[in-house]
Amino acid sequence: MPMHRLLAALLLSMLVHPAFAQSPDHFLMPMPQQVASGDGELTIDPAFTISANASSDARLHSAAERFLENLTTQTGILLTPQALVTEKAVLSVTADSPGDTPQKLGEDESYTLTVSSSGAELKAPTTLGVLRGMETFLQLIKPGANGFVVPAVTIHDHPRFPWRGLLIDVSRHFIPIKVLKRNLDSMAAVKMNVFHWHLSEDQGFRVESKIFPKLQQMGSDGQFYTQQQITDLIAYAHDRGIRVVPEFDLPGHSTSWFVGYPQLSSGDGPYSIERKWGIFDPAMDPTKDSTYEFLDKFIGEMAKLFPDAYFHVGGDEVNGNQWNSNPRIQAFMKMHQLKDDHDLQAYFNTRLLTIVKKHGKHMEGWDEVLHPELPKDIIVQSWRGQKSLAAAARQGFKGILSSGYYIDLMQPASQHYVVDPLSGDGANLTAEEAGRVMGGEACMWSEFVSPENIDSRVWPRTAAIAERLWSSQDVKDIDSMYRRLATTSDWLGRRGATHQSSYRPMLERIIGADGVPALKTLADVLEPVKGYRRGQLRKFTSQTPLNRLVDATRPESDIAREFNAAVDRLMEGKAHPDDAASIRSWMEKWRNNNAALQPRLGGSFLITEVAPLSSDLAALAAVGLQSLDAKEKGSTLSADWLQQQKPVFDSAAQPKGELLIMVLPGISKLAGITPAVPQRSQE
Amino acid sequence: MPMHRLLAALLLSMLVHPAFAQSPDHFLMPMPQQVASGDGELTIDPAFTISANASSDARLHSAAERFLENLTTQTGILLTPQALVTEKAVLSVTADSPGDTPQKLGEDESYTLTVSSSGAELKAPTTLGVLRGMETFLQLIKPGANGFVVPAVTIHDHPRFPWRGLLIDVSRHFIPIKVLKRNLDSMAAVKMNVFHWHLSEDQGFRVESKIFPKLQQMGSDGQFYTQQQITDLIAYAHDRGIRVVPEFDLPGHSTSWFVGYPQLSSGDGPYSIERKWGIFDPAMDPTKDSTYEFLDKFIGEMAKLFPDAYFHVGGDEVNGNQWNSNPRIQAFMKMHQLKDDHDLQAYFNTRLLTIVKKHGKHMEGWDEVLHPELPKDIIVQSWRGQKSLAAAARQGFKGILSSGYYIDLMQPASQHYVVDPLSGDGANLTAEEAGRVMGGEACMWSEFVSPENIDSRVWPRTAAIAERLWSSQDVKDIDSMYRRLATTSDWLGRRGATHQSSYRPMLERIIGADGVPALKTLADVLEPVKGYRRGQLRKFTSQTPLNRLVDATRPESDIAREFNAAVDRLMEGKAHPDDAASIRSWMEKWRNNNAALQPRLGGSFLITEVAPLSSDLAALAAVGLQSLDAKEKGSTLSADWLQQQKPVFDSAAQPKGELLIMVLPGISKLAGITPAVPQRSQE
Repeated sequence: MPMHRLLAALLLSMLVHPAFAQSPDHFLMPMPQQVASGDGELTIDPAFTISANASSDARLHSAAERFLENLTTQTGILLTPQALVTEKAVLSVTADSPGDTPQKLGEDESYTLTVSSSGAELKAPTTLGVLRGMETFLQLIKPGANGFVVPAVTIHDHPRFPWRGLLIDVSRHFIPIKVLKRNLDSMAAVKMNVFHWHLSEDQGFRVESKIFPKLQQMGSDGQFYTQQQITDLIAYAHDRGIRVVPEFDLPGHSTSWFVGYPQLSSGDGPYSIERKWGIFDPAMDPTKDSTYEFLDKFIGEMAKLFPDAYFHVGGDEVNGNQWNSNPRIQAFMKMHQLKDDHDLQAYFNTRLLTIVKKHGKHMEGWDEVLHPELPKDIIVQSWRGQKSLAAAARQGFKGILSSGYYIDLMQPASQHYVVDPLSGDGANLTAEEAGRVMGGEACMWSEFVSPENIDSRVWPRTAAIAERLWSSQDVKDIDSMYRRLATTSDWLGRRGATHQSSYRPMLERIIGADGVPALKTLADVLEPVKGYRRGQLRKFTSQTPLNRLVDATRPESDIAREFNAAVDRLMEGKAHPDDAASIRSWMEKWRNNNAALQPRLGGSFLITEVAPLSSDLAALAAVGLQSLDAKEKGSTLSADWLQQQKPVFDSAAQPKGELLIMVLPGISKLAGITPAVPQRSQE
Repeated sequence: MPMHRLLAALLLSMLVHPAFAQSPDHFLMPMPQQVASGDGELTIDPAFTISANASSDARLHSAAERFLENLTTQTGILLTPQALVTEKAVLSVTADSPGDTPQKLGEDESYTLTVSSSGAELKAPTTLGVLRGMETFLQLIKPGANGFVVPAVTIHDHPRFPWRGLLIDVSRHFIPIKVLKRNLDSMAAVKMNVFHWHLSEDQGFRVESKIFPKLQQMGSDGQFYTQQQITDLIAYAHDRGIRVVPEFDLPGHSTSWFVGYPQLSSGDGPYSIERKWGIFDPAMDPTKDSTYEFLDKFIGEMAKLFPDAYFHVGGDEVNGNQWNSNPRIQAFMKMHQLKDDHDLQAYFNTRLLTIVKKHGKHMEGWDEVLHPELPKDIIVQSWRGQKSLAAAARQGFKGILSSGYYIDLMQPASQHYVVDPLSGDGANLTAEEAGRVMGGEACMWSEFVSPENIDSRVWPRTAAIAERLWSSQDVKDIDSMYRRLATTSDWLGRRGATHQSSYRPMLERIIGADGVPALKTLADVLEPVKGYRRGQLRKFTSQTPLNRLVDATRPESDIAREFNAAVDRLMEGKAHPDDAASIRSWMEKWRNNNAALQPRLGGSFLITEVAPLSSDLAALAAVGLQSLDAKEKGSTLSADWLQQQKPVFDSAAQPKGELLIMVLPGISKLAGITPAVPQRSQE
């Protein structure tokens, strides 16, 4: 690593690494409601013990076991398993009650953590608060002068919103239980409390039904969860203070149901599992009683399997084509005075709601389910935005926000971070109305997600969303967020999330182990195209291998963000002492990297598409270096020369291999050359 | 990465990375007995299918499932689970018989693999051969011009030795089931077939006994395997063609037994679990009938739990102190005409053998159990060397070699690789005698091993031992071994072994994420001290945290080996074109690294000890650079100057933080300066 780069990294790290941080809040995420630093520090050594009052609560015991395992992982101190002692311990835990099973929406998650040089106390009304406080304690551990320590501190903490979720779409690409558990661990680490399990789609039905076995037998390619696995996963989540809300998307997004049960559909069939991405015609037939008889039995079975009080029925994106082209359905609509598809879907929802309620659940659905006549115990999940959410709240409905939290769109953490469920239209709600906004959910739609790279699409960005939903509304400093996100990302990685560790093997597959350093230099400043662009650039099916550079590359390039920020400071005359040197050193690295990479680029089909990106980056860096030279010498580059360089920028602004060069804005600013077509990195 | 370094890496990689290899045998390990390259290649794509004749064999089905999972991991091609088809498939598998349960010593593991552009055939006498051949097929997959391919090839293969084992000591440090399974996966990948589970020691008794529950309750700190876990692990191993041989070390190494059952010992007790490392006095009392009554019941229970035909009773390192100081035992020896401890141990072994045989097992033990009067169905495991092994074979005993394969001693792979069970005294055996040498076992003693770093102590070096035991005796080219070991190491890492992935998090714990590049530059050329030196340099107990740089650092530095070899070539006038540039570039990096690292070295107790290593390396590199300058200019450095630099080498030759600077030999040769005290890197 060049010296300047390293020095810059060192300076930055002195702000962020626990070992060098000045204050405990430098490495906490989500930021607690109140943090007061004390004097001194508590030593963590092999004599560490933990005590608890609530010895009758099995969940507290397993939490303590995991806590000790995580303590070992973080420190390398080999603790043997220990019973919770009741006498004085290093960490003394008190929970007033064990909390509910299943966990309830709005259950008290508050805790108080007091650490001094002589010991630590963690107190909470329920075990749930203890779980949250334990994660805070773990985040506070750092290496000190003579051993691992936790700085003295008093923390009073509670969540701002009671619903802090992550949706994982396991239908478009199947995600094995092991991978889900790993992600539940990370969710718990950042205090999230709802796992929204998106279980059925056109592309796959993922749950074993004993009553209607053809659902999984014919609708899943053999990729589904057994009921035993589901029960285990729910227990695993509950242990971590996470509710599991299942979603069965109806009446659209349901092709996979119809492979085994074509009679449920509004068309003729036969059906096969959908392999493409998009919105498709097949929809359930809302006009037949047999549809509701089926759903009654099915939801009855699922309501027993999933103990949570909420049951998500989807309801989004019905294009109505099957309904419109089916004369029987058209006749039914006329007879029942249903003037359009929306009315027909409302009719369906009303009957569905009766079934859901009959089986003891509250219904949840996407924006489209909203209908003024629905009862007020439903929850609306808004993918359309704060406006839609606020409108629902005004009508008396509870809601959660997902618009702005679609992490499949490859937006930077900062973009999600500024989205607040109570901003925009939400800011104008009365206190009572605002109280109906329960929180939000990050959504991991899985068109371009495999078990191998899902962690890197979810983490660390989702930790920023977790903070938005847990911490005070005034916690919104972007720089602070990014500093703490970096620490949190490393912490999650050490605890088992694979968002960092999957990177190298994926690069290695593309270029071989020895080519990784050069490929990584390139990949480190790339990002996948944004929004829904990827699907427009190339044809994909569910079987398209996700093994290309775009699948390995991180959604957000830290280096590009830092580089662009350094250029901004330089151009605004606010440069930090090392900015110019860092900018030069980075650009030299990129310019030289192409020569190192090019000889490798013919080796295999996975590498070929990388070549133009590497040339583009090198060409950009070369122009950037000349511009920097001129700037430092106080000379000016000729208009002719600038004009000649413009094609470099025009080319680099075009996505290649579905990837964008994210340092283009910085170099563009440095050179004063704007590409003809904007990069559209934020679409 | 400096250009020269990178070019050197590129040149090297063109020899080793599958994508660039000329011939399939460039990436196979262990090397098959016969490999004949063909024309063309087989494409691996989402249409891949696998068929099998032996559909009645459950083991073949689960092997095919794992095979497909590994195929997905290697290629990123998303294969859905598929039944073994019986019609024509891309890979057609035929096993003549399912093989034995439990697996037998010497069972046929041969296979024939034929790959052409139109398909592949894998044929074997038993499922065991299929398992081996599947791993070979997976090793052959590489990225081609248009997709993943397997080159056309015909391979006839079988193992040289029937016993190719890995011992893991789970007693000195407990190793959880999850970690063992991960290591079984890697063993299967390199065709090893015996997991030797070293289950009891002074420091811990790791098995649940239902008859004598105080063994685990009082002897394990709560760290033991339940019988259910053991049964599961054995099934897991059997699925992978691996036998599980349990070892209960007797009559010494047994303090942990006596915590719950002091009456078994030859001393007075009470006992507590031993926390230190070494050889301790406690030993079972061989004179009491009650000892054998206990062992009869215990071994009866364990013989049912562990189905393998062999049962290892240890027998090593009894120091005799308790026997010698116990008048009752001395009187017993006199009465039975047992002239010394060796005779007393033989008496014990004879009675123990009766018990082991009664419960249907063959006895196995370390060298010390050998006694001419023992029956010939026992197996002797030699930790003393080929001489001892050959002597046993001459007496008619079967044996396996472990001397030379102690991977806890931190020796390079090449040193283990040259050890052959049939070299040394073994080379003079008759064919019949040699036939009694069954193979060997790598031994992972765990004084300095934790679940976190065990993979990095076992892999990749054990793959070189696996090749020694599988491949033909004339496969012994060290350079070829190292090239294929690098590929194999990456391959094992992608399949789940953590020997590579644990490195970064352990460095991160020491210095924080941003300090890792600089610390890694240093750590990449360090190795832990060799042999039994570490325990002499510092006091350790089983609770000493294994979180220091020495615990993160790899047993063998690839960079140091490559650097030293380049210097050797340069000094011998046989330099490769880039050697001089690479040597310079490396040394510049090391010289500059200290400045980058020093500001970080005061941050925490884990970093402090790194400081002198970093200064030493920088000082060495500075001298090396001046020497290289002189050499390239054809000038000579003055004797005075050389004398002044000598203290740099004297200091660098001293271990610090239990670590050695492994590029010292190369720089020493370059400068012509020999440290006063040799580095003793190979002791």
